[in-house]
Amino acid sequence: MDDRIWPHTRVTGLLGITYPLIQAGMAGGATTPALVAAVSNAGGLGTLGAAYLSPDALREAMRATRRLTDRPFAVNLFVPTPFAVDPRQIARMAARLAPYRDAVGLPTPTSPVPDRYAESFDDQVAAVLDERAPVFSFTFGIPAPDVLRRFKERGVPTCGTATTVREARTLAAAGVDLIVAQGSEAGGHRGAFLGPVDDALIGTMALVPQVVDAVPVPVVAAGGIMDGRGVAAALALGAEGAQLGTAFLACPESAAPPAHKEALRRATDEDTRLTRAISGRAARGIANRLGMELAAPDDAIPPFPIQHTLTHDIRQAAAAQGRAEFLALWAGQAAALAHPTPAGTLVADIAAATAALLHSSTPPAGDDGDA
Amino acid sequence: MDDRIWPHTRVTGLLGITYPLIQAGMAGGATTPALVAAVSNAGGLGTLGAAYLSPDALREAMRATRRLTDRPFAVNLFVPTPFAVDPRQIARMAARLAPYRDAVGLPTPTSPVPDRYAESFDDQVAAVLDERAPVFSFTFGIPAPDVLRRFKERGVPTCGTATTVREARTLAAAGVDLIVAQGSEAGGHRGAFLGPVDDALIGTMALVPQVVDAVPVPVVAAGGIMDGRGVAAALALGAEGAQLGTAFLACPESAAPPAHKEALRRATDEDTRLTRAISGRAARGIANRLGMELAAPDDAIPPFPIQHTLTHDIRQAAAAQGRAEFLALWAGQAAALAHPTPAGTLVADIAAATAALLHSSTPPAGDDGDA
Repeated sequence: MDDRIWPHTRVTGLLGITYPLIQAGMAGGATTPALVAAVSNAGGLGTLGAAYLSPDALREAMRATRRLTDRPFAVNLFVPTPFAVDPRQIARMAARLAPYRDAVGLPTPTSPVPDRYAESFDDQVAAVLDERAPVFSFTFGIPAPDVLRRFKERGVPTCGTATTVREARTLAAAGVDLIVAQGSEAGGHRGAFLGPVDDALIGTMALVPQVVDAVPVPVVAAGGIMDGRGVAAALALGAEGAQLGTAFLACPESAAPPAHKEALRRATDEDTRLTRAISGRAARGIANRLGMELAAPDDAIPPFPIQHTLTHDIRQAAAAQGRAEFLALWAGQAAALAHPTPAGTLVADIAAATAALLHSSTPPAGDDGDA
Repeated sequence: MDDRIWPHTRVTGLLGITYPLIQAGMAGGATTPALVAAVSNAGGLGTLGAAYLSPDALREAMRATRRLTDRPFAVNLFVPTPFAVDPRQIARMAARLAPYRDAVGLPTPTSPVPDRYAESFDDQVAAVLDERAPVFSFTFGIPAPDVLRRFKERGVPTCGTATTVREARTLAAAGVDLIVAQGSEAGGHRGAFLGPVDDALIGTMALVPQVVDAVPVPVVAAGGIMDGRGVAAALALGAEGAQLGTAFLACPESAAPPAHKEALRRATDEDTRLTRAISGRAARGIANRLGMELAAPDDAIPPFPIQHTLTHDIRQAAAAQGRAEFLALWAGQAAALAHPTPAGTLVADIAAATAALLHSSTPPAGDDGDA
């Protein structure tokens, strides 16, 4: 792979990386320090999906990553959204979840209402700042101006997620350095924060050029990108980088449960659905019992992060037991293109395939462009 | 525009065109002979959206097109799908439509059940064959083997629409020469024919490479493509051509009602929705009263083409009166990128912008790639 023929974009310059390839910050445990470091060592940007980590666990994950790489990596957090705690709604959902708990051998919880539903965002931010994250990325909105200011003061680039042009403009106006345009193909949680998710399911091909035209900051395309073909397409659309999640979930360094990886291996383009049933926020995954049986009626599902907490130990037990029907099988619409390639090799393969496409004057036939 | 730097693909070879740019065969009247001929004269492939035309009108449209161009063009038809006629469902829908008829000054129909709901597909096919269409394209399924055989015998290339890998494989197995992979971004009717539409909303970025890998025939990308950036992206994904609908709807040669064109000018990325309320089949358009008020409950909507027939004269009257709320405002998710450029200029601009991107070793910044 000849680095000279790779385009340098504002994304590579801003983040200090070789290739504008970002491994998405998937919360839930898949993004191990080994995965993040492998991506960064190969010239991309690994991301710790730290949204569910306690500040102490977050510090430890960052230190573990630093032991494996001296290249830049990102830490991703979820911007908290206010949510209503409705004890009756929660009790009803707990009752509906009881058979699932039974199925994986969990006892009925003495109280379905835990002490708290999420880590403190402020404490997480403090940890990210203290540990000097090279890049800070976030999803589900925009941190308070004071938080963004503190990263700016330390020279840490910030990266937000937009699912619409309006969200992108709002992020840019807030001073965010880089915007991930998340197309509807993307696996995992939808980043929508300014309107109903159903009105913000814009495909990557349509979303990226509109966002590029709307904001002065560099745009990274996400959603349905799995190989060099997708990255070259993203660059053609005007993006200056590409973010891949599902492609990296399948890597050996990813700690996605084996049953999740097996589901990725068998996925077709028709297999994913959006569901709020797993976490309380709309997310795309391979359709299974947990995601589909509880999906209706929508107003019976407690909001994020309550539902996420209620289903947490069911998913943990299911992972240990290899039961895909009770997991969060997050996956994008091109999951079928995933390969269980080591992450560093995957970055190199994608970079090489992208470069070959960018320097070819004829379009690829068949799967020549496949990483 | 230097033709030599444009890639020759199997699509240009098969269709006998200069640029693998296809103007989509949008039924409903927008695709005038002037539009089709302008696209073909500029080196792309214009398409008569002939699905709603009587065989006589179809012949006349083909002859009119031939008077304006000696280049290849396509004729697009809808493959008929069996549908149940439920007089009570139809009467209930007619009652719900009565206020719309009132609003545009139409009388209550004496009988809501017309003699027939669609033109004869066989008679339409006979017209297309008699008039020697250079290319035959179709949507909503696959014509009977005998129909495909007759086109093959005359050396007329056939082109089908797939919204999933499974549909693409089915089309290829039937001997179709070229497959349009229709991503979820696309405006107008969804082509899905093998399963529920809701399970076949795969974004162009995810769909195209999976279809390319699955079938031996050339693939044309559709959905969210509006300019050279989108075409270059489609080629990077492995497509050998691109089909654009919404981009051509805005052209002066398009006979889309002025209120429709005005709606395109004001559209944002968040404005389109899928609805069955207008025709009985899921289609994407800019949200308006006709599309949204009747959308629920879904089972109250008669199937295509019944609902299409029931709303027909409301839409006709609304077009004459400039009332966008009662029109079919078909549009893709990137409608905001449409410009009212003459069709021939649009083809040339897109071809030039695509070529510039294909021969650039750095990705575009901002809107440099915009046609």
